[in-house]
Amino acid sequence: MLPAKNIPWFATASREERWLVGVSGGADSVALLHFLVEAGFENLVVCHLDHGLRGSASAGDADFVGNLAAGYGIPCEIGRADVASRIKERSESLETAARNERHAFFFRCAEKHDCPRILLAHHADDQAETVLWNLLRGSHGLKGMRERSMMATKKGTSLEIVRPLLGVRRAELVGWLTSRELPWREDASNAEPIAIRNRLRNEVLPLLDEITGRDSIQAFARGAADTEERAALEDWAFVQADVLDPQGRLHVPALRKLPVSLQRLALRKFLIDDGVTAVDRELLESALGLLDVGNAPVINLPGGGRLRRKEGRLWVEKMHEE
Amino acid sequence: MLPAKNIPWFATASREERWLVGVSGGADSVALLHFLVEAGFENLVVCHLDHGLRGSASAGDADFVGNLAAGYGIPCEIGRADVASRIKERSESLETAARNERHAFFFRCAEKHDCPRILLAHHADDQAETVLWNLLRGSHGLKGMRERSMMATKKGTSLEIVRPLLGVRRAELVGWLTSRELPWREDASNAEPIAIRNRLRNEVLPLLDEITGRDSIQAFARGAADTEERAALEDWAFVQADVLDPQGRLHVPALRKLPVSLQRLALRKFLIDDGVTAVDRELLESALGLLDVGNAPVINLPGGGRLRRKEGRLWVEKMHEE
Repeated sequence: MLPAKNIPWFATASREERWLVGVSGGADSVALLHFLVEAGFENLVVCHLDHGLRGSASAGDADFVGNLAAGYGIPCEIGRADVASRIKERSESLETAARNERHAFFFRCAEKHDCPRILLAHHADDQAETVLWNLLRGSHGLKGMRERSMMATKKGTSLEIVRPLLGVRRAELVGWLTSRELPWREDASNAEPIAIRNRLRNEVLPLLDEITGRDSIQAFARGAADTEERAALEDWAFVQADVLDPQGRLHVPALRKLPVSLQRLALRKFLIDDGVTAVDRELLESALGLLDVGNAPVINLPGGGRLRRKEGRLWVEKMHEE
Repeated sequence: MLPAKNIPWFATASREERWLVGVSGGADSVALLHFLVEAGFENLVVCHLDHGLRGSASAGDADFVGNLAAGYGIPCEIGRADVASRIKERSESLETAARNERHAFFFRCAEKHDCPRILLAHHADDQAETVLWNLLRGSHGLKGMRERSMMATKKGTSLEIVRPLLGVRRAELVGWLTSRELPWREDASNAEPIAIRNRLRNEVLPLLDEITGRDSIQAFARGAADTEERAALEDWAFVQADVLDPQGRLHVPALRKLPVSLQRLALRKFLIDDGVTAVDRELLESALGLLDVGNAPVINLPGGGRLRRKEGRLWVEKMHEE
């Protein structure tokens, strides 16, 4: 049995507050929606994006989700995107294009329903795959999805993403739906039919199970719990390090007093907070060089900005502000 | 080409100081020994343990290493262990028994040669496998081998382990030896013929390479660089948190002021520093419970000790001191 009451998030979440719920029609998001209804959430809005990637099956998914929501008397937003065109126009990968369209849709729903939070049905199997994939892409530390995270637009609006099912195995969700004879759309959750991720899921993780005799999905998902722990530790350390001046610039003499690992951490957090993406080891090493007055006082940042040292302070000069 | 001068550790290490070097006779440790000689290290001691696991090949390995050292005029310690008997007597796994015998041998060499440091030839492939295996065993965060680490005995003696080759691929070492026409003992480095680790190396890592089109060994080994970063961050945070009283006990009111992730960190470091092994998530949650005066003031620790709360302090009561 997998009732909502065994999932920690459900114990404390407000039933009265409005929540958007992303529902693809796949087993995971369908189970999430049923859990929410059973647990007494009264103010839900179902959000479904047709990515336009599955031909006539896409329309079937949208109908299924629309009917499911209508059956419960829940408002439902059905959006349509043309991911294939976006890929051509912007040279984005399928994964990136689909995600960007989905996020844009979620923001539109959030605005329309005046609701800055959305529930998504990512589960432990997704988490394991994400941890492994991030590790293979050379991420900094162990990086999984967080139970709560914020998305922001350039216009400054933000949307909280909540993932209550990260600790639940996909098989449990399917088992629960099956035991209740509740239907879902096969493959609907695969709006991201990414060859690599599918092969990690279907080949690597089962091979690891077989070799180690352990449940590798649980192992990776548990490892991802470290994502939260690490983030909290870094946030605390950054505050303790006390390296920002009243204008929010990095104070070089304060930085110099820290051990180099803390200098790296402070520079990384400062750059990320300032919207610099792709902060990798190489960039951090150049940024560290700015602490040495013998070096040039400015480095280029990805995306066109610069990190500048002047009068004992470091700050980011944005490309368009120069 | 892979000369020692491209490996960071060689740039700063003292050539005059005495260094023990673990040499199995396999390509990795044989390459390390040649590098050290070429780089001008003058005071080496070769240490080779015959684990007694490879039948007559074991004696061949020992002869090979003995001759290699003699050719360079380097003192050589050859030890013999009966790992199979140890497994029977102590019900240890092959991996644990072999490691314990090896460590005991290294400590004997360290004492005999008055040299508290040993160089080992673990390389990037070993590191990748270790990271993956630790992750699958549910380790806390990304955990690889460290370039420098300390081993301690119960008697209080300690031995520094240094691994200069963690960033170097095994294929580079083999390629270097081949280009110099230098021989090594095939399989000699496999003193730990562990089915699981071998399968990770021979099946999983190549499959990951194939699926992702990336070099997964480099990715995991890079990920392991985070081991150092994380350790440094935690050490710094523990000092900043300032939770030890002058007697080295945990100060409960100071702990209570910290965010829970820092409380966990402080408890974990405190227990590990006190020699408690196997500090897992479950144990930490029980230990956290001690911060609440409504709970019982003592919890049992693995290995028989206890963590006790009294007069606003926490400390470990060892089993034999009670």
